[in-house]
Amino acid sequence: MQNILHLDPLDFPNAVEAVVAGRPLVHCMTNDVVQEITADVLLAAGASPAMVITREESADFCRLADALLINVGTLTPERFQAMVLAVQTAGQCNKPWVLDPVAAGPLPWRNARIEEFLTFRPSVIRANASEILALAGLSKGGHGVDSLDDSADAIEAACALAQQFECTVAVTGPTDFVTDGKRLYAIEGGHKMATLVVGTGCSLSALVAAFCAVLSDRTLATAAALQLAKKAQERARAASRGPGSFHPAYLDALYELSFTEHRHDR
Amino acid sequence: MQNILHLDPLDFPNAVEAVVAGRPLVHCMTNDVVQEITADVLLAAGASPAMVITREESADFCRLADALLINVGTLTPERFQAMVLAVQTAGQCNKPWVLDPVAAGPLPWRNARIEEFLTFRPSVIRANASEILALAGLSKGGHGVDSLDDSADAIEAACALAQQFECTVAVTGPTDFVTDGKRLYAIEGGHKMATLVVGTGCSLSALVAAFCAVLSDRTLATAAALQLAKKAQERARAASRGPGSFHPAYLDALYELSFTEHRHDR
Amino acid sequence: MQNILHLDPLDFPNAVEAVVAGRPLVHCMTNDVVQEITADVLLAAGASPAMVITREESADFCRLADALLINVGTLTPERFQAMVLAVQTAGQCNKPWVLDPVAAGPLPWRNARIEEFLTFRPSVIRANASEILALAGLSKGGHGVDSLDDSADAIEAACALAQQFECTVAVTGPTDFVTDGKRLYAIEGGHKMATLVVGTGCSLSALVAAFCAVLSDRTLATAAALQLAKKAQERARAASRGPGSFHPAYLDALYELSFTEHRHDR
Repeated sequence: MQNILHLDPLDFPNAVEAVVAGRPLVHCMTNDVVQEITADVLLAAGASPAMVITREESADFCRLADALLINVGTLTPERFQAMVLAVQTAGQCNKPWVLDPVAAGPLPWRNARIEEFLTFRPSVIRANASEILALAGLSKGGHGVDSLDDSADAIEAACALAQQFECTVAVTGPTDFVTDGKRLYAIEGGHKMATLVVGTGCSLSALVAAFCAVLSDRTLATAAALQLAKKAQERARAASRGPGSFHPAYLDALYELSFTEHRHDR
Repeated sequence: MQNILHLDPLDFPNAVEAVVAGRPLVHCMTNDVVQEITADVLLAAGASPAMVITREESADFCRLADALLINVGTLTPERFQAMVLAVQTAGQCNKPWVLDPVAAGPLPWRNARIEEFLTFRPSVIRANASEILALAGLSKGGHGVDSLDDSADAIEAACALAQQFECTVAVTGPTDFVTDGKRLYAIEGGHKMATLVVGTGCSLSALVAAFCAVLSDRTLATAAALQLAKKAQERARAASRGPGSFHPAYLDALYELSFTEHRHDR
Repeated sequence: MQNILHLDPLDFPNAVEAVVAGRPLVHCMTNDVVQEITADVLLAAGASPAMVITREESADFCRLADALLINVGTLTPERFQAMVLAVQTAGQCNKPWVLDPVAAGPLPWRNARIEEFLTFRPSVIRANASEILALAGLSKGGHGVDSLDDSADAIEAACALAQQFECTVAVTGPTDFVTDGKRLYAIEGGHKMATLVVGTGCSLSALVAAFCAVLSDRTLATAAALQLAKKAQERARAASRGPGSFHPAYLDALYELSFTEHRHDR
């Protein structure tokens, strides 16, 4: 693997502005727990979320959307069928779609469904280190939905996955890593308080989908989305007392960074 | 259409007090994304929410409730069946029920389900301009769940719908309009920050259901519910930095307006 | 019934520390409305939540978890099947599981499902007074999901249930009561503002599951979990203006009590 890259000073504000200007419609097929925060994160960053979940509509709606999010957190057979129809449509329409393989590793039925999703070639896989290691066959997964592995330990696995499936892979953690198998970006910063607010991880995948909808370089788009989240986490920590007040402060920070302040970064 | 009316100075506090005094039980059959904010909005305004969603119970529970909310946001065939049983019960028991036709327009399966709901004669239809225009056959709908049309452009369509289905129709947006086909109320104020918080629209329909449970004039009840939300949005904006802090501030404002301050408006 | 007991001064900080030290993984099978606050409450108290809901995975995941929560709030036949598989696994593995019989009483289908759950012997039943009275066959239940009965009125019923099913029973309300049929603990304090925030009740049951995962005396564990919530409610009330700001303040308070301040209580 090559040297570790960081985002160019202009890449970040340009990407954030592109989302606000493009207001991409993100079709979210995600788990039951994080629906609200996922929608709120997208809105705060200037994107437009829509949750359409049934197989009668998922392909039709994916055609209208600019990007698709697939998160397997509370997967059921019915949801899986609807998701496959959307994923196939995304492929046919050449729309970016992001796979969030929540809790990959210890559950056989889930692993088999995730493998099916991988055959449809996601544009981006966004996961924690334990999940990425599980996808690469190197680990038995984390502690429920939380990672027990450090993000740096999953770089090699992420790179192998990116090459195998010709996609972008993001491993998020204390430091985030994004790779397409050739380039490797590191995104530092953030705050661990985010790990005490449910959905801050899952909603990253939605943010990545929004950025991929407006930028053709999906690896750069993914790195910029994660950078936005890291910066927002730092502001939120400064403005909060604990995980309860961190949640609204994180949304406020995403909004400020997206709608006003990034314009001064240049 | 007649002149545009505004709520009488006493109508608003009387309506708000009637909700607090009556504590109506609102049976919410709504989408997966907005369940929490819908319940929290009802509680803050003095109503009692309950989500009962399966066909084994939806008719039984509707019999116990004071009003019913039907929101098609994440509709599935199973949820639809359960909703129809509740709607039929509401009709038999002469209980008010509100239809929120989320994303009406671009999705054929959804449109067909919404048309079935319309045959059961909702007491109130609450939607954004794009959805109302779609229901009236005049538009291809909005941008996912967000309106691309101005609320004023949908007044005519709202009036036509109200006459056709003998119900109250509310078009919400920068200015809200409420009509029964004869009277037309306008409700001004509010704040656009609400559009960056998921569920502020959907929960309006729940609030309308609560007000219709305690007031026999459903058009007046609907206008008063929307007035409460507009006033709460204004307060929330003054007390918040962005969409994250707007959400709790909106609930606080609904609570203050409902439980204490409206009493001083007289 | 014996005298009313209160927690020993050291029991509470010891229990809270045991959760933080053990970081128990709580398998939550709960209703659609309270998924987020349930996860956030567990995270703020140092536990690790995971929602796995389908019958293809519920038994497998229960084997990995340290405790199980069953909440029947938005029960469907499919969810019920998946829950039964998890409950059977909890029994086989001798893992604690908590039953939250939301809205027990007025709905025949729900009552029949709750009776089936009771045959699997929950470790703890956590409910409001109306629900406990309904379970004991003494009442027709509450006002939707809210209790119409005072918690003290349900002490006798709670004691009878605890003896019949050889479990711990918690009746929560202005004062909480916890009994195993022999001992009876009372937990005072808290604030009624919590009743205006959806999920503060349901998430208590998740908190009880977390405490039972790390303490062998489940009655003491349950009382300590409820004590934590009461203390957090008092702090949240002092730091909030209404139910909107109460929600993040409650999570902040749980976090502060769990991660820092209880250590000074000794």
